[in-house]
Amino acid sequence: MMAMPERPQAVVLLSGGMDSCVTAAIASRDFRSAVLHSSYGQRTEARELRAFEQIADFLGVEERLHINQRYMTAIGGSALTDQAIEVPEADLAAAQQGEIPVTYVPFRNAHFLTAAVSWAEVLGAERIFVGAVEQDSSGYPDCRPGYYRAFAAAVEAGTRPETRIAIETPLIHCSKTEIVRRGMALGAPLHLTWSCYRSESEACGTCDSCVLRLRAFEQAGFEDPAPYAVCDCRS
Amino acid sequence: MMAMPERPQAVVLLSGGMDSCVTAAIASRDFRSAVLHSSYGQRTEARELRAFEQIADFLGVEERLHINQRYMTAIGGSALTDQAIEVPEADLAAAQQGEIPVTYVPFRNAHFLTAAVSWAEVLGAERIFVGAVEQDSSGYPDCRPGYYRAFAAAVEAGTRPETRIAIETPLIHCSKTEIVRRGMALGAPLHLTWSCYRSESEACGTCDSCVLRLRAFEQAGFEDPAPYAVCDCRS
Repeated sequence: MMAMPERPQAVVLLSGGMDSCVTAAIASRDFRSAVLHSSYGQRTEARELRAFEQIADFLGVEERLHINQRYMTAIGGSALTDQAIEVPEADLAAAQQGEIPVTYVPFRNAHFLTAAVSWAEVLGAERIFVGAVEQDSSGYPDCRPGYYRAFAAAVEAGTRPETRIAIETPLIHCSKTEIVRRGMALGAPLHLTWSCYRSESEACGTCDSCVLRLRAFEQAGFEDPAPYAVCDCRS
Repeated sequence: MMAMPERPQAVVLLSGGMDSCVTAAIASRDFRSAVLHSSYGQRTEARELRAFEQIADFLGVEERLHINQRYMTAIGGSALTDQAIEVPEADLAAAQQGEIPVTYVPFRNAHFLTAAVSWAEVLGAERIFVGAVEQDSSGYPDCRPGYYRAFAAAVEAGTRPETRIAIETPLIHCSKTEIVRRGMALGAPLHLTWSCYRSESEACGTCDSCVLRLRAFEQAGFEDPAPYAVCDCRS
């Protein structure tokens, strides 16, 4: 039996949501994935961590890094990290009009990306995969292609001369419906993901994240495997 | 008595070293400073935190944020955050030849900057001050002007449309000797700073950071107020 040539390594940001799960499945086809998860004081921290571990188990990823970035609660400024700011009912029309919702965590994705870059530089990984989605999202500024291009330039300028790290955002132009279809086609473990901003046992079904997810599963023609608090929320 | 118009706010990265101390003194002339300090598992963490608090006290800065970024020890890859890698004796010739020393913490300054950006966005601060020094330093890639320009572009792309945050690096082209002179002229509390990479009680006097500091004080014509382990290290 011939030894298989070792695949190159990639760091994958794996929040435990649908987009990062499908991204991890995409990355794992061609790369040895090393998955990174952050607990940053978000409301559903424990549930997301469980999703991260279960998805990594399912994909057979051994190299995992779980980091504590809870200092983000001291910075606050978001409904996700400040318990005094309520997570609102979904308002996707506002997002379409360019309004930034209160669930925006100021410059959040840079905290995750920065850790991924440091880890990639230590591991010698030349790719970072991020499940950012621009279209069909809540309108967060750090989910747009221009942001990832700019961040990649900062990585190029701020790391060792021999370090080469490309940032891959394979889903950034996809609709959520396309992401569900792609995940299903890849056999990605969508049943293990968690999306709700508010709750850890049963998804609320009414925050931005739940509404986007429910609509995506419905339009893709699959049943959403997540448990929802309200039985008729899929209608 | 007329009320003074409130000065604009700036976030200042304050490690507790000489460069950040002088930078904080510069910022505090024109801005209400909000100072940010990170414990990232560096060897001299407690001593640096003390320097941070004492410098902030001296400058009369009330708005302080001390964050825990010790996940950087799990990433490792540096003599500062991995106890298994020894801090070497100073070798400034290597730095001049473009070699990156083992005290380089992969993409470290991005971790601090990212937190500063999030905090600035929440506070509404339009400036971030960083005491990065390119020349006369250990040759870290994340201390060069091009890196800060690239990072600023990522900040512009990844924050709210109305957010405007400029990154100021007032010392980046200065020699360490100029920094000592400038600090003395400003009345910056250099006697409260800590620079040694290795030790927390008496500075070793022989790591890159100590050697750069000692040389700077000597060339500037001032006595370095830091306590050194070896009495003849200033000769």
